[in-house]
Amino acid sequence: MAFLEALRAEIGAAQVLTGAEAAGFGREWTGHYHWTPLAVARPGSTAEVAAVMRLASAAGVAVVPVGGNTGLNGGTHAEGALMLSLARLNRVRGLNAATRTVVAEAGVVLERLHEVAAEAGLVFPLTFGAKGSAMVGGFLSTNAGGSNVVRHGSARALCLGLEVVLADGRVMDLMTELHKDNTGYDLRDLMIGAEGTLGVITAAVLKLVPAPAGYGTALIGVESLEVALDLLNRVQAGSGGAVEAFEFMPARYMDRLARLKPELACPFPPQPVNILIEIASTRADESPSALLEEILGGALEAGLIGDAVIAGSEAQRRKLWLMRESAAEITFTTPNLVDTDVAFPLDRLETFLHRMTARLAVLDPGAEELVIAHLGDGNIHYTAYPTRDDAGLRDTIRAAVAEEAVALGGSFSAEHGVGLSKRPTMAAHKNPVALEVMRAIKAALDPRGILNPGKTLP
Amino acid sequence: MAFLEALRAEIGAAQVLTGAEAAGFGREWTGHYHWTPLAVARPGSTAEVAAVMRLASAAGVAVVPVGGNTGLNGGTHAEGALMLSLARLNRVRGLNAATRTVVAEAGVVLERLHEVAAEAGLVFPLTFGAKGSAMVGGFLSTNAGGSNVVRHGSARALCLGLEVVLADGRVMDLMTELHKDNTGYDLRDLMIGAEGTLGVITAAVLKLVPAPAGYGTALIGVESLEVALDLLNRVQAGSGGAVEAFEFMPARYMDRLARLKPELACPFPPQPVNILIEIASTRADESPSALLEEILGGALEAGLIGDAVIAGSEAQRRKLWLMRESAAEITFTTPNLVDTDVAFPLDRLETFLHRMTARLAVLDPGAEELVIAHLGDGNIHYTAYPTRDDAGLRDTIRAAVAEEAVALGGSFSAEHGVGLSKRPTMAAHKNPVALEVMRAIKAALDPRGILNPGKTLP
Repeated sequence: MAFLEALRAEIGAAQVLTGAEAAGFGREWTGHYHWTPLAVARPGSTAEVAAVMRLASAAGVAVVPVGGNTGLNGGTHAEGALMLSLARLNRVRGLNAATRTVVAEAGVVLERLHEVAAEAGLVFPLTFGAKGSAMVGGFLSTNAGGSNVVRHGSARALCLGLEVVLADGRVMDLMTELHKDNTGYDLRDLMIGAEGTLGVITAAVLKLVPAPAGYGTALIGVESLEVALDLLNRVQAGSGGAVEAFEFMPARYMDRLARLKPELACPFPPQPVNILIEIASTRADESPSALLEEILGGALEAGLIGDAVIAGSEAQRRKLWLMRESAAEITFTTPNLVDTDVAFPLDRLETFLHRMTARLAVLDPGAEELVIAHLGDGNIHYTAYPTRDDAGLRDTIRAAVAEEAVALGGSFSAEHGVGLSKRPTMAAHKNPVALEVMRAIKAALDPRGILNPGKTLP
Repeated sequence: MAFLEALRAEIGAAQVLTGAEAAGFGREWTGHYHWTPLAVARPGSTAEVAAVMRLASAAGVAVVPVGGNTGLNGGTHAEGALMLSLARLNRVRGLNAATRTVVAEAGVVLERLHEVAAEAGLVFPLTFGAKGSAMVGGFLSTNAGGSNVVRHGSARALCLGLEVVLADGRVMDLMTELHKDNTGYDLRDLMIGAEGTLGVITAAVLKLVPAPAGYGTALIGVESLEVALDLLNRVQAGSGGAVEAFEFMPARYMDRLARLKPELACPFPPQPVNILIEIASTRADESPSALLEEILGGALEAGLIGDAVIAGSEAQRRKLWLMRESAAEITFTTPNLVDTDVAFPLDRLETFLHRMTARLAVLDPGAEELVIAHLGDGNIHYTAYPTRDDAGLRDTIRAAVAEEAVALGGSFSAEHGVGLSKRPTMAAHKNPVALEVMRAIKAALDPRGILNPGKTLP
């Protein structure tokens, strides 16, 4: 094929994988999607990414950008398409401690960013379970969230500048490190979360924050979400907004954890609502752990808390976090499940869970459900385990979750994006004018429709 | 004219101003721009805005949306165009204290938002000098900044949802109140800061934050920007990131203030760098004022501070703020000036000011300069007062400021936008591929080019 020959000539034959070499790229780790890519291109620089896109654009070849491939919605599905791996663009181009910014290429792994920041006494606050594999380009293209969004925002809020290769190979340089920059349309945020359908992110300027002088971390058990949200407000008020994470693990999650990872079993009899809470502060004059203990002590006296454990050491803190970070492992025990990612205004979470439990019982009596939530953001990962392997039933459950979410003013995709799996939901629930505008922008920036075709847009 | 007749039929003759009635809309308050609009339409609802746009689109009439008309860059210049006033869309549709959101129409004045939030024990943190006139639609369309950006971000960071009328009258409903919502392209942020060239913002869901239990506010005098930035880091670290404002007023600003508003004269002999600093906290267990005093006390002992005053009452706090909020009044004493709005990484501010002073002395010996800055954001308002009324000289100075800003990795528009006055700067300094992408998006969303034509895009 002339296209692949030209590609080899441009970036080197060793960086164009086909056949068995490419086959390993043809699946999502959940097992939900499998495909056979045309080939996998592994350019080593922005200029080479641009060259790949020029060739693909001229040949009309579909291109699916891929980073750590840790997505959950089929966003890198690439049947017959060229997969464009950003893994070799893995340089940290620089870190400026004075301006608290780091310039990282698309293939830098999230955990490496954490390490690089820590060496400078700083923190890159985005974090989630897949941090050991997820890459900059991927977490920006999906506007990933995770466990620290309640304080630091999603990926979008942590990105100051971008470098993007467009469908035809033009390089758009938006690499500012400024916090204020009103020079024209917000193209940065348009590219973030576009799931590789408008351009290929090759590098970014990311915000860092000062390393806290200390953390206060606790696991607390309460009887209801209402009490938990009251507690969130108390801790926010009492700590001056220092809550970094507020993660909800229901009793069923704790049971599953105890079964599958006994060493991470809940240290007290699981309550209906168990919350991992963490506060952090740069203040050297007081201990966040002591402050958290004091605030929780007040809540205990008020009868709000059933049980609680405060981490007394970094090792104990890590252990509490491992309970939460085991979520994917604990959830994805079978491909025959329905994983969802919905968000709500905080005052409507409980209603959703009640409605969904009732509805699942009708759709598939005997089906189990598992919930884990970034509660501080109103973001629930609701998973259903149907009693039988039935794609139609899975679609019905998925549609029901989206319907209940939208009916309560929620979103059918909080932080995982749309990809392939939520295209029908987009068609059903996204504002039709917004869809028209999205299509107009897609046509304007990628007129041949070669960038991650069939994703995001229904 | 058939168009105006149709317009009167649609929104009522009383709401279509022409001739002398419309003439009052034909100027910017700075006196920099004057124009004669075709007419001024004052629709009273989103549906009426849509009707106006349908008519204008069919007739090919240019439409310039206008709110409080407090802009500084000619963004509402409307020679021969229909001005679309959003002032009658002035309802606060609702406030939800539990989710800390307010839904406000485009014509709601910023100060009214402050009042409405305060009644619910909450704060809408965006604030700047023109708050008594600026409206929601305007501060979103320009992504306005102001004095609390260092903690709460610009307008974009405070907006969760939008309602937008497109060029052809379609209504795009993006009115979510969610903090996490990854359902397709970020059309909200594309519309924010687009200066009315892509759509007309008619309503928004805005974030509120809890009212602080107290403020700590001080005016401090130090010898250099370097010391001031060291102080900013100290107060941020010592307060756990509680700095709400960090505003720079140089000695020359203080002199001007003492001359023009003697009641607001600096309470100590002005130092080279005078900073208004404010911290705030929701914590009831400590006084931000005492905490600030303690941190500043340490800095005083370390010899960093020349002089300082801490506000001991709300009245004293208001007086310190009035010193800062008088900036526009003090700056715009003559239309024959060059006002600019540039931003830098914090470590390059001082270099810019040195270079610019030297450069102005060459361009126009004897010209004065005045600086005021949102220092915590690296955002400087640099104003030059040329010795003669010479439009060419003004353009040369403006171009020099932009050139020096860009050379230091800065932006030529931090928070005021592009409008008319910075179009040549956009042409000279904006990444050319970004300009092409902006043009492609403009053509896709407003193919007839009727929305605020001639603005933002060079």
